Amino acid sequence: MDFGVSTEQAELAERARRFAAERLAPGYRARERAGAVEPEVRREMGEHGFIAPELPAQLGGRGTGRLSSGIAVEEIAKGDFSVSYLQVVGSLVGQILATEAPADLAARWVPGICAGEHVVGIGLTEPHAGSDAGMPRLTARREQDHYVLDGVKSLSFCGSASAAVVFARTGDDQRRAKGISAFLVPLDLPGVTRESYADMGTRAVERGAVHLDGVRVPAGNLIGAEGCGFTQVMRGFDFSRALIGLQCTGLAQLTVDDTWRYVSEREAFDRPLSAFQGVSFPLAESETLLTAARLLCRETLWLADEGLAHTAKAAMCKWWAPKTAFEVIQNCLLLHGQFGYRTDLPVEQRLRDVLGLQIGDGTAQIMKLVIARDRLGRELAP
Amino acid sequence: MDFGVSTEQAELAERARRFAAERLAPGYRARERAGAVEPEVRREMGEHGFIAPELPAQLGGRGTGRLSSGIAVEEIAKGDFSVSYLQVVGSLVGQILATEAPADLAARWVPGICAGEHVVGIGLTEPHAGSDAGMPRLTARREQDHYVLDGVKSLSFCGSASAAVVFARTGDDQRRAKGISAFLVPLDLPGVTRESYADMGTRAVERGAVHLDGVRVPAGNLIGAEGCGFTQVMRGFDFSRALIGLQCTGLAQLTVDDTWRYVSEREAFDRPLSAFQGVSFPLAESETLLTAARLLCRETLWLADEGLAHTAKAAMCKWWAPKTAFEVIQNCLLLHGQFGYRTDLPVEQRLRDVLGLQIGDGTAQIMKLVIARDRLGRELAP
Amino acid sequence: MDFGVSTEQAELAERARRFAAERLAPGYRARERAGAVEPEVRREMGEHGFIAPELPAQLGGRGTGRLSSGIAVEEIAKGDFSVSYLQVVGSLVGQILATEAPADLAARWVPGICAGEHVVGIGLTEPHAGSDAGMPRLTARREQDHYVLDGVKSLSFCGSASAAVVFARTGDDQRRAKGISAFLVPLDLPGVTRESYADMGTRAVERGAVHLDGVRVPAGNLIGAEGCGFTQVMRGFDFSRALIGLQCTGLAQLTVDDTWRYVSEREAFDRPLSAFQGVSFPLAESETLLTAARLLCRETLWLADEGLAHTAKAAMCKWWAPKTAFEVIQNCLLLHGQFGYRTDLPVEQRLRDVLGLQIGDGTAQIMKLVIARDRLGRELAP
Amino acid sequence: MDFGVSTEQAELAERARRFAAERLAPGYRARERAGAVEPEVRREMGEHGFIAPELPAQLGGRGTGRLSSGIAVEEIAKGDFSVSYLQVVGSLVGQILATEAPADLAARWVPGICAGEHVVGIGLTEPHAGSDAGMPRLTARREQDHYVLDGVKSLSFCGSASAAVVFARTGDDQRRAKGISAFLVPLDLPGVTRESYADMGTRAVERGAVHLDGVRVPAGNLIGAEGCGFTQVMRGFDFSRALIGLQCTGLAQLTVDDTWRYVSEREAFDRPLSAFQGVSFPLAESETLLTAARLLCRETLWLADEGLAHTAKAAMCKWWAPKTAFEVIQNCLLLHGQFGYRTDLPVEQRLRDVLGLQIGDGTAQIMKLVIARDRLGRELAP
Repeated sequence: MDFGVSTEQAELAERARRFAAERLAPGYRARERAGAVEPEVRREMGEHGFIAPELPAQLGGRGTGRLSSGIAVEEIAKGDFSVSYLQVVGSLVGQILATEAPADLAARWVPGICAGEHVVGIGLTEPHAGSDAGMPRLTARREQDHYVLDGVKSLSFCGSASAAVVFARTGDDQRRAKGISAFLVPLDLPGVTRESYADMGTRAVERGAVHLDGVRVPAGNLIGAEGCGFTQVMRGFDFSRALIGLQCTGLAQLTVDDTWRYVSEREAFDRPLSAFQGVSFPLAESETLLTAARLLCRETLWLADEGLAHTAKAAMCKWWAPKTAFEVIQNCLLLHGQFGYRTDLPVEQRLRDVLGLQIGDGTAQIMKLVIARDRLGRELAP
Repeated sequence: MDFGVSTEQAELAERARRFAAERLAPGYRARERAGAVEPEVRREMGEHGFIAPELPAQLGGRGTGRLSSGIAVEEIAKGDFSVSYLQVVGSLVGQILATEAPADLAARWVPGICAGEHVVGIGLTEPHAGSDAGMPRLTARREQDHYVLDGVKSLSFCGSASAAVVFARTGDDQRRAKGISAFLVPLDLPGVTRESYADMGTRAVERGAVHLDGVRVPAGNLIGAEGCGFTQVMRGFDFSRALIGLQCTGLAQLTVDDTWRYVSEREAFDRPLSAFQGVSFPLAESETLLTAARLLCRETLWLADEGLAHTAKAAMCKWWAPKTAFEVIQNCLLLHGQFGYRTDLPVEQRLRDVLGLQIGDGTAQIMKLVIARDRLGRELAP
Repeated sequence: MDFGVSTEQAELAERARRFAAERLAPGYRARERAGAVEPEVRREMGEHGFIAPELPAQLGGRGTGRLSSGIAVEEIAKGDFSVSYLQVVGSLVGQILATEAPADLAARWVPGICAGEHVVGIGLTEPHAGSDAGMPRLTARREQDHYVLDGVKSLSFCGSASAAVVFARTGDDQRRAKGISAFLVPLDLPGVTRESYADMGTRAVERGAVHLDGVRVPAGNLIGAEGCGFTQVMRGFDFSRALIGLQCTGLAQLTVDDTWRYVSEREAFDRPLSAFQGVSFPLAESETLLTAARLLCRETLWLADEGLAHTAKAAMCKWWAPKTAFEVIQNCLLLHGQFGYRTDLPVEQRLRDVLGLQIGDGTAQIMKLVIARDRLGRELAP
Repeated sequence: MDFGVSTEQAELAERARRFAAERLAPGYRARERAGAVEPEVRREMGEHGFIAPELPAQLGGRGTGRLSSGIAVEEIAKGDFSVSYLQVVGSLVGQILATEAPADLAARWVPGICAGEHVVGIGLTEPHAGSDAGMPRLTARREQDHYVLDGVKSLSFCGSASAAVVFARTGDDQRRAKGISAFLVPLDLPGVTRESYADMGTRAVERGAVHLDGVRVPAGNLIGAEGCGFTQVMRGFDFSRALIGLQCTGLAQLTVDDTWRYVSEREAFDRPLSAFQGVSFPLAESETLLTAARLLCRETLWLADEGLAHTAKAAMCKWWAPKTAFEVIQNCLLLHGQFGYRTDLPVEQRLRDVLGLQIGDGTAQIMKLVIARDRLGRELAP
């Protein structure tokens, strides 16, 4: 067992930390106002190898392992939480394409993702359905060498994505997760319209909906076998769930670091705030939980790198790290008193941002079900 | 013992509930954007007797008891949380003036507060100091029949208040809470400038700072005896702390009510969300905590009405009800899934709004100290 | 609204407090070792009117209302938690007999309960079933003017009870809660054997099982109509759930009181323990929660006295007060350091005792279901 | 980074697991009743290399690293929590002697510890002082080639220990942690008497006090330099704190495993208990927290093995893992319903056992202070 990072990982972390602090953090509030990540920031992320570096070199990655990607994600999230979504979505979609898509489709799209040239979103849920992704209403019917897609999908980077991976029902089978296929849909096709959601946070993530009205997608854009898309693609989420955990621990850790400093410098009742156990103890608790949550996420990524089972652990990361991070940041906000409540400091934006990840990519309820089923099977934990 | 509301209280509650739903709720988001409560809404609040009705009739109140005021506050908060601040600030300042100020000063200002004609803010804290109100830097020095005030105070309704009650140091005594006096400062006096804070929520409350640069206040505007302001005025906060508790339980209860409806109507995995214990149990827990918190606040107001000691109980209301309400609303937001995170629904605004009351008017740390001192005395709980 | 206790209630509380401190507390540990409450203590409880005083005078009660009973229960629990079970069981069984049983049956048994002459237990659950009381395996078949009972029931005061109220299946109907009847079974009848459980706490409550093998019970011992026992009798539990809440808040409050004293007197790092916020804040939190829980239980009893709906509120009392009390006492134990862990002080016995009431009379899961159904109906909250 | 256990560690874990299940678990309750661990069990533990295997071979250890010891501790705790104390105390004392004691003293005592031949206890606290170990009243005054010790110390294995490491004041210096020396005191010396504590759990750990009345200890039994004992010896506690964490996660994990099985097999309302989210979700949460806590403890031991700073992390282990384990086991107990409350099943004994480790070896308050000081220094976190 070895809990140390390698020299390569330490360098990656350091590079990401610097990029986050110098390039990203100053624009954190502005990017929210703009409601988008600047394309040049995206490209710089790519140049640094911060997007999906675990992918093989021939697809534009660096072959450095998922754990390294997690380390980069945790640092980037500190600079701008929304920017780190590029990494999570990039790794998730990149891996799906690299693993399940025809080689030429992957070769066409993945290098651009890694380079930050473009974003390929992933539309798992539909507005009517939330975490229940197993019953899409989006349909795809075959017409010669095309599929015609009709329906709507919610996704991140809705505004600026060049394409999106979506699930569609291709068969008559109404059983959950059967007869579902995955497609890569270029979003400049006729029949695509985009709708923007007004979210309370992570506005630079551009959450929204793509409406597909009779969109004709080449048959070659089918990912995986027809009717098998759901199960194949869902496997990729175990990876992204651990990355999400690290986004959250990163942002929360930075906020805890800031707060230690704040309570050391500010006085009340003639002593630094930090001298009161009512102030320092919650921070000590936060340190503990974040340290543990980070290890949990890292172990999950290590399991993924080793090809070992990690579905239950990924679900643990997904429900616990975002929840813990939210509570930690909320407490830090309170420790900043009236200043924490103001938009002058970044704490309130962080709180709004981190909240979204208790919802996106599966609620806590789904995750606990995954854990229970991992222990008991689907029959005893229906 | 009698836990029932009187007919009069039931009617007041019903009137407030209707006003909140019909007059206030539709403008909840707009008032946030505008960053202010419309003067006509304020006046209608006054006409209905929703502002400080516990004050005597000759000062514009209705002599109906603090408990009745609490009932009205809880209902109004459901329509627009910021509007209910008018009630809390009105009751707090109204009571201070009615109890501690010279009769003519009270007669000049209090009726207008009750009528919603104007707002008189209260500047307890200074930007440098947060919950430690016992060491103001604002100074007041006597010059014949005036006091000259220099310093800065944070307060609610900073933009639209006609006047503000402030604490200033009038003596050399550097011991906490000694040599502090309270004044009513008309905000149209020369030397007053106003600064607006950009808060993450309750923006219609217009939090900000008034800067006083050599402001000459008539000696008749002194509230209480010179040098004794702090202790006298702080007594009023036991009352407002219970009202704050009810603002929070009201908003949270409405959100729970909304959420029961939402989870009954929305389906996942072929059943209504409410059929999952992972969904319904947290709501049942929320119901329990809100019911208990409401009782705690009501008992505190009853004690106040009876002239019985209620400092420790007021502190319990102040730390626990806002915290509980925040957690309840946050959970409700999550149960709304992606919709909860959007600004289309009011849940996210409520979450941002309710958060502020874990800070304003004294942090949880201060409140727990108050409770401990009530049990052990200041020496054993320093 | 009136949160004050009447003079009569204050006197009752004072009498109970004194009895608890002087007569009960000194034997708290000894009664656990003996595994029973002394009959003379039971009779003294009766003489004082501490057992089921809410019952009418002609049945041996004092007609003083359920709220008064709650006040007495809270105080008695401070002296010996197990002894206060006599009150809860007495009120529950007494009320069932007074309301649902034939008049002569009630007249024969209830006065002795109130007087502490004997205990009549209630066997709701069976060893195989826990909180699911709606499917008893105990059967009762009519034979002329008798019923013949076969099966087993768990109950409190198993060792010393003179009789027990039990549910039995009298019909073929296998639908839950249908075809179930209630009987009063004298435990000196042939065919009754008793088994004692070895519990981790409340040992003087003598939990155990009565085995009924062909026990012939006179038809006149049927309580309520044949086949309707379940629904009729279950109503009584709303009352006992609130009493259980008060048992728990009483014991926890006493422990908090003790702990404030302990941390004031004991020093560490040259200061009294109470001077550390890490010590005093959890106690302040405990005070808050217990105050709120007590109000919740009292309101529930008041609703019962007024004949108003209180099923959901009783369920709130039942899950929340025992849980809160357990956590409070556990924290108090820790604040006593190594002494808290020893059996020299009563804290550890209290912790073991209070734990049982998170299970007995319905788990938290059942209670949350009751609350959800009260809001949504059984269909939406199955 | 590598989260996998080595083949050697996997074999050790498997051996310990088998020993725990086959040799220890059957006697868990009996050992509590006896109030002691059988000497032959102790020796078998030694033969298996379960006690302090991280010590060098020439002192009887196996030189396998602290992480391996942690793995063994976690498994042994599942069989009998008290028996695993032998490992924690053995590793702690063994390391102190190996590192700080004169070579001949270490050579005389350490091999017997590792072999399970005898126990050497450690008396950190005195009955008057709890977690504040820095101000002992025990005094040691030099008389030629002996020290004469007077005072009293609390320790584990008080009844059967052959010797104990104690702190005594050797100088006049009344400043904390100055002038304190450590000694190894054979407990068969004249003037030693033993007192047994009646604890609520871990009774086989034999907590008690040794009273030293003019006990003459050879000067060669001084550990470390005179007057420097405290700081030197306290370093060893960082190691034992992580081991304590693993004792707790081990016991809690076993209980969770048992509970998954129980709720799968038992039915209520015509379904297995596990089919209710109100049952399965808390278990899924428990799995998550235990997985994270285990990683935290393992990382701490790895840091210790690497010679890297781990004081703050050890404090995290010590406050969080025992607290989490207690809450997890308590929830499991509740999920067992009435059976959980009985002494027939081991859950209640586990709950009582695990509770002690929130106190022993330093309270949560001390640990949070250690974490805060690690961040801010002693001045800002006094």
